[in-house]
Amino acid sequence: MLVATTNVDVRYAETDQMGVVYHANYLVWCEIGRTKMIEEIGFSYADMEKTGTLSPVTNVQMNYHFPAKYGQSVTIHTWIEDYNGIRITYGYEIKNDEGKRCLTGTSEHVCVDAKTFRPMKIKKHFPAWHEAYEKYKKQPEA
Amino acid sequence: MLVATTNVDVRYAETDQMGVVYHANYLVWCEIGRTKMIEEIGFSYADMEKTGTLSPVTNVQMNYHFPAKYGQSVTIHTWIEDYNGIRITYGYEIKNDEGKRCLTGTSEHVCVDAKTFRPMKIKKHFPAWHEAYEKYKKQPEA
Amino acid sequence: MLVATTNVDVRYAETDQMGVVYHANYLVWCEIGRTKMIEEIGFSYADMEKTGTLSPVTNVQMNYHFPAKYGQSVTIHTWIEDYNGIRITYGYEIKNDEGKRCLTGTSEHVCVDAKTFRPMKIKKHFPAWHEAYEKYKKQPEA
Amino acid sequence: MLVATTNVDVRYAETDQMGVVYHANYLVWCEIGRTKMIEEIGFSYADMEKTGTLSPVTNVQMNYHFPAKYGQSVTIHTWIEDYNGIRITYGYEIKNDEGKRCLTGTSEHVCVDAKTFRPMKIKKHFPAWHEAYEKYKKQPEA
Repeated sequence: MLVATTNVDVRYAETDQMGVVYHANYLVWCEIGRTKMIEEIGFSYADMEKTGTLSPVTNVQMNYHFPAKYGQSVTIHTWIEDYNGIRITYGYEIKNDEGKRCLTGTSEHVCVDAKTFRPMKIKKHFPAWHEAYEKYKKQPEA
Repeated sequence: MLVATTNVDVRYAETDQMGVVYHANYLVWCEIGRTKMIEEIGFSYADMEKTGTLSPVTNVQMNYHFPAKYGQSVTIHTWIEDYNGIRITYGYEIKNDEGKRCLTGTSEHVCVDAKTFRPMKIKKHFPAWHEAYEKYKKQPEA
Repeated sequence: MLVATTNVDVRYAETDQMGVVYHANYLVWCEIGRTKMIEEIGFSYADMEKTGTLSPVTNVQMNYHFPAKYGQSVTIHTWIEDYNGIRITYGYEIKNDEGKRCLTGTSEHVCVDAKTFRPMKIKKHFPAWHEAYEKYKKQPEA
Repeated sequence: MLVATTNVDVRYAETDQMGVVYHANYLVWCEIGRTKMIEEIGFSYADMEKTGTLSPVTNVQMNYHFPAKYGQSVTIHTWIEDYNGIRITYGYEIKNDEGKRCLTGTSEHVCVDAKTFRPMKIKKHFPAWHEAYEKYKKQPEA
């Protein structure tokens, strides 16, 4: 199991009138973490899209534990929570710069053809990604 | 059980380079549905905030079924999925203008003091809201 | 000269920690006004894009007079400030529900080929739009 | 004259269905540049807000030269274009990673009391900021 780590400075634009980061913006941070995770195992999501494949989100589950604030930097930890050859589930933990856990969550993705949005088997169409996902995904504990 | 219905025209700003609505923006639409739901049972979230109470999101679960697109109008159905005097869970279904189900999901909320972010019991601090939530929430099926 | 009018309820997501609408979000509202303006003269921007033409922004000038707030509804007035067969300049005025002027501004647009981003003459490629823009644009005062 | 430089990786969330960065998002990048500029001359905007002062935008002027894209990193150059003791005008130039100029622009700001939104003279209320702004602002060419 590989955990990718990336830092993001909270943007003013990401706050709302509660004085904290607006809840939908954590999904954007998770995407940044995901991109980093993919890079660390040797791939590029931008390049995948150039081949005519998209990887839309099919499910998100987010638990908000503690609000992140402007003026802080947050750390996004991302890993492959689950993978079955078709669906990928990424896991996330976001902490603020005092080490407080702000968010835990998962997002589930498939691959689809950019024109038709028809699902594509990752195992079949992207064998190198498939191998890497099998290798780096979270393993069942002994 | 009361289901509030509201329509939203998809904004260009809400799309991404997949040519469909960016997944995080559905959370904004759910919030619009929630605001409408609250209005329909006789309250105003904006007014609640003016009394020094916030209602942050503690959990979201979103299932993305079908992409919404620019040029379409979507319909947001919102109801009270669950309520226990402290936590409120709203349920959502979003359909496009051809009746296709784009999203189903839930979001969970608590009430907190705006200054301290300490949880407040809705039953105790907002008895009128409490009564309405009890009345309009989804009832167990017979 | 035709002035299109459209109303928008301020979204919570559009606020920032100043407790007012974040300045970049007015550009989104201007776009909504622009879309309405185009509809009122008989066209659809979504349909234009389907023919392989985009109309990117080349310049914006925004004057922020008074902050819009959550809980308010704003009115967007949009007109064709200038048009020369190639460039269109839209004018905007946004007022809150007490009639206070929140924003005045302009945005300038061209038409480009969706694949190459090369400029296209509106007069030549979209003669019907051209005629309408000539007809409805702001006329020099006598 | 001091020019602050900062890099930003384009986020997927920042694109729209044109396949390029949505025009309003450049304002967010300018804000990141501004924050960096302020840090480089020894101050913190987040800290200023904690003293009960806000610095809202009163005007933006943006020229869009070339579209930035997902998969790229952009460089934001920010400087103090003008300053008169009350109003600050920041200047911006944003380039993509091939050195192409994507955007040039300015934004104008004042300082206001967080509660009343009444203007505050920077020279009077923030003498240290005043001195720095006088020192680092763009000087008239000889």
